[in-house]
Amino acid sequence: MSLPTRTRLTPEQRRHQLLDLGVRLLADRSLDELSIDMLAEEAGISRGLLYHYFGNKHDFHRAVVRRAADDLIAQTAPPVAGDPVERLLASMSAYVDYVDANYEGYLSLVRGAGGGNESIRDIYDEARAALTDRIFREDQETLVPDTPATRFVVRGWAAMVEELVLGWKADPGAVTKDELIVIVTATLPALVGVVAPLPDEVAAQLAALRTSGS
Amino acid sequence: MSLPTRTRLTPEQRRHQLLDLGVRLLADRSLDELSIDMLAEEAGISRGLLYHYFGNKHDFHRAVVRRAADDLIAQTAPPVAGDPVERLLASMSAYVDYVDANYEGYLSLVRGAGGGNESIRDIYDEARAALTDRIFREDQETLVPDTPATRFVVRGWAAMVEELVLGWKADPGAVTKDELIVIVTATLPALVGVVAPLPDEVAAQLAALRTSGS
Repeated sequence: MSLPTRTRLTPEQRRHQLLDLGVRLLADRSLDELSIDMLAEEAGISRGLLYHYFGNKHDFHRAVVRRAADDLIAQTAPPVAGDPVERLLASMSAYVDYVDANYEGYLSLVRGAGGGNESIRDIYDEARAALTDRIFREDQETLVPDTPATRFVVRGWAAMVEELVLGWKADPGAVTKDELIVIVTATLPALVGVVAPLPDEVAAQLAALRTSGS
Repeated sequence: MSLPTRTRLTPEQRRHQLLDLGVRLLADRSLDELSIDMLAEEAGISRGLLYHYFGNKHDFHRAVVRRAADDLIAQTAPPVAGDPVERLLASMSAYVDYVDANYEGYLSLVRGAGGGNESIRDIYDEARAALTDRIFREDQETLVPDTPATRFVVRGWAAMVEELVLGWKADPGAVTKDELIVIVTATLPALVGVVAPLPDEVAAQLAALRTSGS
């Protein structure tokens, strides 16, 4: 898994490559388990060079977490085509795949953000805001009307989705992966419907999803 | 606020009284801020006597958190009379009141449980299980059918309720307290409806709640 050393990389490219490696290592271990030593060994370069790129362990962890958050946001971007429920379904499917493939690292981020780690919490909060703000982009306004109450409920939905996906990974007996994806998708309009009437076409799409998926 | 010293209390009664005081102190400060010194001063007794009752700071914090969790469970017990939605509404109203009155301590428990504090997490998980298992008691089975999928969704609902109530306390602009109580109540059957058909009478009660409350 060592990086190619003959290729001339700019410092920026090399830093990027090391962060990619850090994120990959985070797939099956917690942030606490990810040390500069481990990255140096996996990358086949010296610890001194790593400190040159990342300053200290704290800055290294922040940089890896920020890269992981950026990856999550990019991988769960909804497709441009399709009706609002189809696009949300695709985005939720990618989110479940992401957590499935990166469970240990993701769990350690959630716990770090939930506990006392302020710098991890900042990145986590920004990422969650980016994921939920996407719901309210102009081209998606037919799915969820944009009001203070719907934005409030969508924040709760995001917390629920995280709990359900992590809960499913920890104890997968209650629902299948496909059922989980349909549940986390269908619950958004179901929750929003508590504070705002759903457009007729969204209600129809939702009914079709629930008939086909569960 | 010092405790009556003339009354002869058994050691068990005295310990109980000190825990009540600890829980009251937790209303407007975090667990980290609640020290043995502070409790000794407020209770008007010596630190040595407090160590006699609680062993060390860790055991003291565990005991206070367990008492706070027991209080929360007791205060949010649904009334015995009323239809399922009315009883859930009363329970949710008590839950919102509890978090409203005990915000700092409650937030520190949620963060302690979400972060690395294993002993706090155990108590937190037990309390949340007690709160959600109540939904499935035999005399409430008309509200939520008891299946693996509905239990799974109810765990997600509990995480959402916590996020919404803490979010409302931190930034109360989006919805009023009464709206919040209706939202956290109405979202339970709305979410369960995604994985199981709602009984007709629950759907009717829910429709009535949403018309009257928001």
